[in-house]
Amino acid sequence: MHILVLGGAGMVGRKFIERLAHSGELGGKPIDKVTAQDVVAATAPAACPFIFDAVVSDLANEGEAEALIASRPELIVHLAAVVSGEAEADFDKGYRINLDGTRHLFEAIRKAGDGYKPRLVFTSSVAVFGAPFHDKIEDEFFTTPLTSYGTQKAICELLLSDYSRRGFFDGVGVRFPTICVRPGTPNKAASGFFSNIIREPLNGIDAVLPVSDQVRHWHASPRSAVGFLTHAATMDTAAIGPRRNLTMPGYSCTVAEQIEALRKVAGDGVVARIKRVPDPVIDGIVAGWPRNFDPQRATALGFTAESSFEEIIRIHIEDELGGNFVR
Amino acid sequence: MHILVLGGAGMVGRKFIERLAHSGELGGKPIDKVTAQDVVAATAPAACPFIFDAVVSDLANEGEAEALIASRPELIVHLAAVVSGEAEADFDKGYRINLDGTRHLFEAIRKAGDGYKPRLVFTSSVAVFGAPFHDKIEDEFFTTPLTSYGTQKAICELLLSDYSRRGFFDGVGVRFPTICVRPGTPNKAASGFFSNIIREPLNGIDAVLPVSDQVRHWHASPRSAVGFLTHAATMDTAAIGPRRNLTMPGYSCTVAEQIEALRKVAGDGVVARIKRVPDPVIDGIVAGWPRNFDPQRATALGFTAESSFEEIIRIHIEDELGGNFVR
Repeated sequence: MHILVLGGAGMVGRKFIERLAHSGELGGKPIDKVTAQDVVAATAPAACPFIFDAVVSDLANEGEAEALIASRPELIVHLAAVVSGEAEADFDKGYRINLDGTRHLFEAIRKAGDGYKPRLVFTSSVAVFGAPFHDKIEDEFFTTPLTSYGTQKAICELLLSDYSRRGFFDGVGVRFPTICVRPGTPNKAASGFFSNIIREPLNGIDAVLPVSDQVRHWHASPRSAVGFLTHAATMDTAAIGPRRNLTMPGYSCTVAEQIEALRKVAGDGVVARIKRVPDPVIDGIVAGWPRNFDPQRATALGFTAESSFEEIIRIHIEDELGGNFVR
Repeated sequence: MHILVLGGAGMVGRKFIERLAHSGELGGKPIDKVTAQDVVAATAPAACPFIFDAVVSDLANEGEAEALIASRPELIVHLAAVVSGEAEADFDKGYRINLDGTRHLFEAIRKAGDGYKPRLVFTSSVAVFGAPFHDKIEDEFFTTPLTSYGTQKAICELLLSDYSRRGFFDGVGVRFPTICVRPGTPNKAASGFFSNIIREPLNGIDAVLPVSDQVRHWHASPRSAVGFLTHAATMDTAAIGPRRNLTMPGYSCTVAEQIEALRKVAGDGVVARIKRVPDPVIDGIVAGWPRNFDPQRATALGFTAESSFEEIIRIHIEDELGGNFVR
């Protein structure tokens, strides 16, 4: 099979493609080719058993979507997006990439006109929800986003359901939790500290905690994120019905519980590298975020995530640090 | 003040403009001019105390939205839409008119660049909801439409909230119940019978009831529809907050209750003109529609509708039949 990954140079895209390269198959079907599209060139995975094609393009440009589906990939995994902060700072860019780019893709598929009907996995976000929330957000809670990014994701979810209902493609929308522990270096995302306070101390480096220990948040590991994509790509969509967008499972905990999990896994010395430097701006942003979900539908449909924060930390140590950390 | 009514030649648009002509003011402000845009020419109301301008145009065409707001109307009431059946039959047309037309309008306002920030009242629909429902749909129930029309309305609701949040205009989205009793002649809409079985018998004409007496539905009168628009146009939007789309109040009853109300208001002879001719196709369509709501937010914000179906019938007799009917 041929798989198209839009946003294939990003963290989750790379990990998904590495998973494909590792097994050489998906859902029992051998993979012939993976096309990784992004605004920068994606690098091929090591020991790649299929043709790997990196395409640098902007999905929102006229004709790009048509070119990307010209070879009729059976699976399209759409991860490409301008992130929340940028979509808020640049209104035009956010709508152009996150809404129009996605709509171009959907329209190109609809207009293919040769019976083409791929599985399409769209990554959405819990940013489709806007405060005030219930303590645990149910699957039937309404989407009233408080950012342009969340608005764009919620609109694409609606389009995904309608295009699937009409039979133009077979879509599954997966709303990601915050992915933690994010590998790499600290970034300026307001959510960055959730990963920073685990990743940096394990590397022997101090990390800043800008919010209260009592802040609660919704997490899943990068390994779970890849699992969400592979399950959405291979599951029987007849079981989903017309409500094609699913809040993924995750693990809800407070920063205090994150820290205690780190203590259990790595010890007091590692925890001592977390430095409390309160930042009221970040505190204010985070106060508007969802804290906990009751993702019954996705769970019933076979999506899985971690059931403790210790597990999330151990996965990071296994997958990113070769089993070692700086005590 | 200058008011722009998009879809001004439709039933609700005409009634809204008649209401404006009758009082000459809105929210205490005298009206200088009303522009009624539609794909056919709207007719001026009788005894019109303001300048009335009928514009025939297609909002989805390039430049039309800019032309319509060139004189900076302080209030825009957006009723223009392709109806549900047509949006389902013609995918391109539905998205072009109901989504792109609305987005053109929103973008024209955003790009005005001279501090222009009108009140914008957008008429949405309970078609943003898709079965299965709760018996009474709460304000926080999610929008999972089962038609392209409902999808387009739900998307415009999301855009309305985001553009309002960003300060580009001051938007209020009002989700209409089924408007009953609809004046005029029977039409082919699947919902037509809810009005036909009242209007035609009152005119001395037989009417077909294609569904079971036990079908429950959600109604408000044309007079209430005009009330929703005037209240949304004049209310203090600070009270709404960022969740700009409101399910309007209405009256939920079964067809059996509609018929009993008709009997009380008009007598057995009128009721005898309702002929039961079951139509499984219409029965199937109606089974997927919402039946009842708990519109707490709109009610708290001062929107009102009828509290009995007798009241709905009496309003029809007063407003459309000059107080008389055929016994």
